[in-house]
Amino acid sequence: MTYCLALKVREGVVLLSDTRTNAGLDDISRFRKMFVWERRGDRAIVLLTAGNLGVTQGVVTRLEDAIDAAARDEDGAESILSCATMYRAAELVGEAMNALQARDRARIEAHGSAADASIIMAGQRKGGKVRLFLIYSAGNFIEATDDTPFLQIGEHKYGKPILDRVIAPATPLKDALKAALISMDSTMRSNLSVGMPLDLAVLSTDALTVQSRRLEADDPNFRAISDAWSNELREAFHALPDVPLR
Amino acid sequence: MTYCLALKVREGVVLLSDTRTNAGLDDISRFRKMFVWERRGDRAIVLLTAGNLGVTQGVVTRLEDAIDAAARDEDGAESILSCATMYRAAELVGEAMNALQARDRARIEAHGSAADASIIMAGQRKGGKVRLFLIYSAGNFIEATDDTPFLQIGEHKYGKPILDRVIAPATPLKDALKAALISMDSTMRSNLSVGMPLDLAVLSTDALTVQSRRLEADDPNFRAISDAWSNELREAFHALPDVPLR
Repeated sequence: MTYCLALKVREGVVLLSDTRTNAGLDDISRFRKMFVWERRGDRAIVLLTAGNLGVTQGVVTRLEDAIDAAARDEDGAESILSCATMYRAAELVGEAMNALQARDRARIEAHGSAADASIIMAGQRKGGKVRLFLIYSAGNFIEATDDTPFLQIGEHKYGKPILDRVIAPATPLKDALKAALISMDSTMRSNLSVGMPLDLAVLSTDALTVQSRRLEADDPNFRAISDAWSNELREAFHALPDVPLR
Repeated sequence: MTYCLALKVREGVVLLSDTRTNAGLDDISRFRKMFVWERRGDRAIVLLTAGNLGVTQGVVTRLEDAIDAAARDEDGAESILSCATMYRAAELVGEAMNALQARDRARIEAHGSAADASIIMAGQRKGGKVRLFLIYSAGNFIEATDDTPFLQIGEHKYGKPILDRVIAPATPLKDALKAALISMDSTMRSNLSVGMPLDLAVLSTDALTVQSRRLEADDPNFRAISDAWSNELREAFHALPDVPLR
């Protein structure tokens, strides 16, 4: 399984993904699910992927090939780094998804596996706004809004309650970052199919660049926030009022 | 959908269920999912049900019919209130489940609906221990242990992280009660298909009776614990250490 999330606040977008994949319970591997493209001063884009790994790797490969073709200035070449808007970039991801589904889906399903995949894309181009999209298997997509400022893919339920309570457009970026890590921590504690290491990225509004880091299993910052949250939760719990039975 | 949970600690078992059912998003009803049987001083049993409503209502009806037959002292009549052990009571629930699945499953699936159902059963008989079982659609069942002291059915993921952190065999009953309400509160906030009112029951160890109450949407105790938890969580969140990006 997988858990990826992206939280959009006024100061920017926080993106976080795990690295565990599994084909059954006894076939567990580690794959990066976060992909970053930057053209400093012009645009920055981050993708998070979930679902069938062959499909999502195929999508990323097609996006990379298009970037190379556009860089060589080939006729009609259009890529997520050269297209006019972030909306168009989401369309390009959807088109790549469509191409992969058309090529592979029937065969994958004939063998009893699932071809579903989903992709979160966050990005900003010079002169545009920060935008955050969720692209489905059918290639269609939705955009995060102030009413729903976060998107999740994969094993999303365990980590949703804390986001529902904490994330709003006015949430400071550093708090969104903590919320993302806590949401991931809760998911990993409740579901073994989501696991360390983690990939963390931040797209600060108008920076047109991506700050990112990998958090390994023994990362002291992650350990500190995970332990602090456990302690705070226990204290919060013991401060609750009693509930009478009658 | 549905969310039911049962937390087993040394002092007893806390059981909590919502009352919302839905056949599609636009066909929402209210049904009780908690069923209580008591023979004071001899035994007390609580059932929580999830899944296909026709199936679970059929199971409960068969259990009731068997109780009536056993009360009339009919030949070979055995019921969850007359059988020798709680393990046998779980078998009787499983047998009723089997009977309903055998009667209805093929027809339900032929019409494109799901016949799956699951039932949590907690109970104690005089001279026995408090026991907590989860009975599946196939009529087979598992029992909660000290390693896994809680069972959930229905929409269980949103409310699991808090239970994973808080519930252990030594947890006081009054804290288990709070944890159950918080787990339900988080689920209702994140998923509209789980909703008030709630049914709450407590089986105190060796009491051989059930304390229960319904919590309506405006219940002041529930409101108090829900608001207190929101405030405590916010404070806990703001007490967390910052995470550097590099």
